[in-house]
Amino acid sequence: MQPLAVGPGRTKVGFIGTGIMGEPMAGHVLSAGYELCVHNRTREKAAALLARGATWCDSAAGVARACDVVVTIIGYPRDVEAVYLGEAGLVESARPGTFLVDMTTSDPELAERIEREGRARGLACIDAPVTGGDAGARNAELSIMAGGDEGAFRALEPLFRCFGSAVLQGPAGSGQHAKLANQIAIAGTMLGVCESLAYARRAGLDPEKLLQSISRGAAGSTLLAKLGPRMLAGDFAPGFYVKHFIKDMDLALSQARGFGLDARGLALARALYGELDASGHGDAGTQSLFGWYER
Amino acid sequence: MQPLAVGPGRTKVGFIGTGIMGEPMAGHVLSAGYELCVHNRTREKAAALLARGATWCDSAAGVARACDVVVTIIGYPRDVEAVYLGEAGLVESARPGTFLVDMTTSDPELAERIEREGRARGLACIDAPVTGGDAGARNAELSIMAGGDEGAFRALEPLFRCFGSAVLQGPAGSGQHAKLANQIAIAGTMLGVCESLAYARRAGLDPEKLLQSISRGAAGSTLLAKLGPRMLAGDFAPGFYVKHFIKDMDLALSQARGFGLDARGLALARALYGELDASGHGDAGTQSLFGWYER
Repeated sequence: MQPLAVGPGRTKVGFIGTGIMGEPMAGHVLSAGYELCVHNRTREKAAALLARGATWCDSAAGVARACDVVVTIIGYPRDVEAVYLGEAGLVESARPGTFLVDMTTSDPELAERIEREGRARGLACIDAPVTGGDAGARNAELSIMAGGDEGAFRALEPLFRCFGSAVLQGPAGSGQHAKLANQIAIAGTMLGVCESLAYARRAGLDPEKLLQSISRGAAGSTLLAKLGPRMLAGDFAPGFYVKHFIKDMDLALSQARGFGLDARGLALARALYGELDASGHGDAGTQSLFGWYER
Repeated sequence: MQPLAVGPGRTKVGFIGTGIMGEPMAGHVLSAGYELCVHNRTREKAAALLARGATWCDSAAGVARACDVVVTIIGYPRDVEAVYLGEAGLVESARPGTFLVDMTTSDPELAERIEREGRARGLACIDAPVTGGDAGARNAELSIMAGGDEGAFRALEPLFRCFGSAVLQGPAGSGQHAKLANQIAIAGTMLGVCESLAYARRAGLDPEKLLQSISRGAAGSTLLAKLGPRMLAGDFAPGFYVKHFIKDMDLALSQARGFGLDARGLALARALYGELDASGHGDAGTQSLFGWYER
């Protein structure tokens, strides 16, 4: 039987992780009229949501017990594992019929394991990482890549529309695989953008004129258009952290090795970002790779 | 003094190189009403233009003597050197005041040398390589990256508009540098696109759904949108030849080394394309790099 679609008035939504992404996303859930329950490692980061009417829960288990849908968007796969599968975790604590939606970029195999263990307890677990960054989260323009049961995905679509647009990529873990494929494309493209602009600078070109000539042609990319000007301005403020990109690339490399895929561009990008991180730039934005070439 | 702008009725245009790019470009010159004179290594490739009213010249020198503007778009830097600076070449044969426009992707230092030697003989030499491929040439939507004297560039703008849109990048050689920066961006982006799609295939994703999720976000690029579907369909027919891309990457690597730029993504792409070429795929399209990852 298809589960009933979620909706304001009949669905209580829990949110675990109210950071740079989760906070605005949870805000959209409130705006849509859902009852909202939040938990975060640092309570202060939920203050604005609480002021708008969200309820605080002291633990993940508390959120699980109180809600029909629990959305998580937290740091690293080890955090996801603890919150879902640890003692007093979501899978252990949620009532049968609850939807658990992990929007963290995480390990595809962990997503499969959560789905399997959740299903054994009557839970519908969906992996649903996103692209679009903090701006996408604020503007409800995220691209959501989901993996899991189709009926559960359909039931959750009204909620996903609060965040942007969602595509069901396949069974459990597929959302994570799609996100890693996304990060792999970014890794290579970033090498091309940084090297192109570093070349242009050293050749004495005016980078503005270069961008004018190349940005709409075969060399064009979102990164060139959006991060190129920031690289040239020396603006390395984080939209997306170097340290988080390294986490994603490590996940992708580990999966690629398992598939026997020789992803050399990805490995090269990982190595260069590793050098950036080692020299103290883990909290800079990913566009700071340009600085590596300008050194 | 500013040279007079070129125009139909008062300017006789010569075209050397009527291949996959030059033939449609020369056709636009005819359509705009210019008197046209052509030369090519293989006369048959000029047949359609001759049928439309172009005049045949037996040699580069013949074109140079007959025309006010000579456009070249030929194979390799060694061909450019021979046609411009060789015995009975363009620089030796052209009347003072003639414009020589090289639209081949070639060596920036050769472009500087041609400009210098041409200037000494009263010639205005512009390097003006293009992006946009054969479709851009047919549809007059090329992006032209020009280097050289600004007055000469302005005078040539009406002719450039027959081919697409032109930006003066800087002094002689700058057009070539901009084109190489373009190719460097493509090299890295191509690694990202190929590896992303190869990963998606091995992870069992539906590539159509993946493209739907990632092509408009941070991972999006012209290559992903245009070549991604061709890669997935196994369509490696040439839009742009592997062997020509290798030529461009070698030029870029040589320049980068001269600048002390450690362009590792470019070097990696060059190495992989070298393997493709060595295994007999030099005449395939650049998207055939996907095959390297699928092997």
